[in-house]
Order: sequence, then C-alpha cells, then structure tokens
Amino acid sequence: MREVLVIGIGAGDPDQLTLQAVKALGRLDVAFLVDKGDVKRDLTDLRRDMLRQYAPRARVATVTDPERDRTTDAYAAGVDDWRRARAARFRDLVRDQLTEDETGGFLVWGDPALFDSTIGILDDIDGVAFTYAVIPGISSVSALAARHGIGLNRVGRAVQITTGRRLATEGLPPGVDDVVVMLDARNAYRAVDTDVDVYWGAYLGTPDEIVRAGRLADIKDEIDEVRAAARARKGWIMDTYLLRRRDR
Amino acid sequence: MREVLVIGIGAGDPDQLTLQAVKALGRLDVAFLVDKGDVKRDLTDLRRDMLRQYAPRARVATVTDPERDRTTDAYAAGVDDWRRARAARFRDLVRDQLTEDETGGFLVWGDPALFDSTIGILDDIDGVAFTYAVIPGISSVSALAARHGIGLNRVGRAVQITTGRRLATEGLPPGVDDVVVMLDARNAYRAVDTDVDVYWGAYLGTPDEIVRAGRLADIKDEIDEVRAAARARKGWIMDTYLLRRRDR
Repeated sequence: MREVLVIGIGAGDPDQLTLQAVKALGRLDVAFLVDKGDVKRDLTDLRRDMLRQYAPRARVATVTDPERDRTTDAYAAGVDDWRRARAARFRDLVRDQLTEDETGGFLVWGDPALFDSTIGILDDIDGVAFTYAVIPGISSVSALAARHGIGLNRVGRAVQITTGRRLATEGLPPGVDDVVVMLDARNAYRAVDTDVDVYWGAYLGTPDEIVRAGRLADIKDEIDEVRAAARARKGWIMDTYLLRRRDR
Repeated sequence: MREVLVIGIGAGDPDQLTLQAVKALGRLDVAFLVDKGDVKRDLTDLRRDMLRQYAPRARVATVTDPERDRTTDAYAAGVDDWRRARAARFRDLVRDQLTEDETGGFLVWGDPALFDSTIGILDDIDGVAFTYAVIPGISSVSALAARHGIGLNRVGRAVQITTGRRLATEGLPPGVDDVVVMLDARNAYRAVDTDVDVYWGAYLGTPDEIVRAGRLADIKDEIDEVRAAARARKGWIMDTYLLRRRDR
C-alpha cells in the first residue's frame, strides 16, 4: 500500500533535523512540497537543499496551496472550505504521484503536531488507500526557548500554547502563567495589559534570526518596529513568542 | 571561559537526536550524567550508548541527584531545598571537572525547555564563571503526538501542558480543549469526569513503548493496570498523555 510520511524538519536550522528525519528522507520515493507562493520562496529553497542532501533519489512533486478566503467573517467556515480544497489536492497528489508500493513524504516546518494542518488533511482524504506515519520535529516553540536559554514552564506550573487570534479576542488565558503565542498576524501582544515579560523570536535558526526579550510594556514598540521592518524586507514573517507573567 | 551545553537528546529513541545535538556531543570534553539511582539504570545506559557513539573522546562525570524530601507538605519548599542542593553539586561538577577552556554537556531527556530543571539549576549556580547554550530536543509531548498520528491542538484552538499534580488539585483547566499531562505519579486522570478522549504513551520511542488511546471513561481502568504492571516490571515509569475534550 502507498505510504506517506509526515516529516518534521525543525524550525529553520537544517541541523535541527533528527536522525530519524534524515533516515525518513532517505527512504522517500517522492517528496511533496507545498508551495505557498513567491514570498516564501526561501523556505521552499531550504527544503530543496535538504532534499538534495538527504533525499537525492526522490522525485519532487509540488502542490500549490489553495487560496484561503480571508474576507469571510466566519473564520472557521473559511478554514473548513480551504481544508476541503487542500484535501482534494493532496489526494490527487498521493494517488497520481505515488505508485502502490512507494513512499512519499511531506516536509513540515517545526513539529507536525503543533499548528500544522498536514495530519488533519491526511485524515480528511477519501478515495485513495495509504498508511501514514509522523516523524516528530523541533517546533519553533522549542527553538524559541532554547535560543533564549529559558524553560517554557516554571517549576510545577503549566504552559499554554495558543494563537494570536485567541489572544486578541480572549486576552491572556486564565490560570496559566506562561503562554506561547503562534500565528500572530496582528500584534495581539499590544493589547495585553497584564505585567508580563516577553521572549520573542523570528526566523529562528536561520541566518535571518531576530530575538528580543524584556518586559512587554518596555519593548512592545520595539517589537512592532522590528516585525514591520522584517516583514517589509522579506515579504513574510514567521515568529513566535512567550508571555511570562511576572511574579507578584 | 568554561562552556556548558544543555543538550536535548529526545524522548527515548536515539534516532530522535538532532544533527545539532550530535555535533554538540562531538564537541564535548566532559559529559555530565545525572544518576537517578538504580531503578533508572537503563536510562543511564542509553545515554552511555549515545556517548560511546557520538562523544567517544569525552570524559564522563556523574553527579548523584540529591534525595528530595517527599514527606513535606510544602511541595514548593521541598523543591526549593532540593534545587539548592542540586545547584551546589552541579557547581562543584562544573568547577572541578572542567578546565577553563573546556566544554561540558548535560544530556537531558526530551526537550530541556519542558519540565526539566537543568536550565533553572544552571541559572542558580554561583561561584564559578561559565556560559551556557541550549540545544532543543524532541519532547515526550511531540513523541506522543507523532506516535498517535495526531495534532496536539485542533484548528485555531490552544493546547495546555500541565502536571499530574495540577490536574489532581485543579481539575481540567478552563478554556482549553486539549491538555497534555506530564509527571503524573498518582493517576490523576481518574478524577476527570469531563467527557474526554485520552492518548497515552509510556517509554516512548524505546523497545518498552506502550500506547493506548480511547475514550477516557472506557479505558482508564486498563491504563491503571498497564501502568501498574509496567512500573512493577521496570521499577519506574516515564509516561505522558493528552486529554482531548470531545466536541459537544
């Protein structure tokens, strides 16, 4: 039967590949690359470099991400439509690019378990038989903490990983003192009026890496400026941050 | 100056080492091993195997974990005393085992950023000058999700990582639908009366790996039995689980 590997390739530094991921890449007959358009061309290039090095015999099949309707008010409905369209494209890819005894792989930035849609889309695919396995990867959350030399949680306490959208609409979640925010397109940290420290990082593990840390109230303007400048320069930004309540 | 590397070595499968970790191991003059006593001897053996393969020239220095006073009611105070004692031992180790231009490394299971005390202890060390850097690792949380082929969070939602102790005293945290529980010594999942699915795993990535998944109400007795049997057989258990609220 067709086999699909969902391979976590780390947060940006090719040396964050695990030995397990390297071995998985070496087994691929086909590598599936999801093309997110010109602006993230350097991310595609990084993956092509990994393939040249670790999967030299694999054919490369590219799938273009469907456009997401970002104008809709119903966020979840927009995501559902987009996922359905993406599942259809992924199904065609698996069916048409893999023969029955071949292994294909999706190269996923970070950890496939964290804020990535690949696993969910594979679950949604109908009409073609395949097995899949997941190779865990270093997430940008782990990379962020390592780069700052900090733990994600404090002794005996919890940590929550959430989205910029949730932070913007619901504020800092209750009952948890350490909150990691991903996918913040709208500077949601600006609205946080609790006294917190922020540990921020963009393009972690790549030559473009930028990090900042300090009391949020003191450095949020600086982070705004650094984010805007980076986005203007590169056309896109991939960043994450930890908000840590200051002990009272 | 002395340099200390805190190296995440993955959740149990040696192939979860990253290329970055392998390179870091190769740079070590001294590898520090924390001995947690006879019962976890196989964990120590696994690390010694990694050292033989990736750090053949490194000297090995072992530090014994101080006994923690588990009889005290004041959990946080007990942890504080234990951390202070551990910081003193680690300071002696760094001062006495490393010369001024050498590099030492702690091999940390999982990801040093998640429920591990090494970084905090290094922050607490006084009286010897050194720099340190952290190499992120595959956490048991990532390994758990990969093994079950699931995401940790659902689309647009948050995930919280907490302890068995907190789950036992505070119940399932509010406002979050996916909760990962670590360090649960007391089967805290038993007291959860919300309708949740559980994705459980022990000794992840090792030959002893055990996993179970299902509706918590249906399989909690089975998990009790499997945990008790595994703990009796090996003398210790290292496990983690995700509780996922079922959609209403």
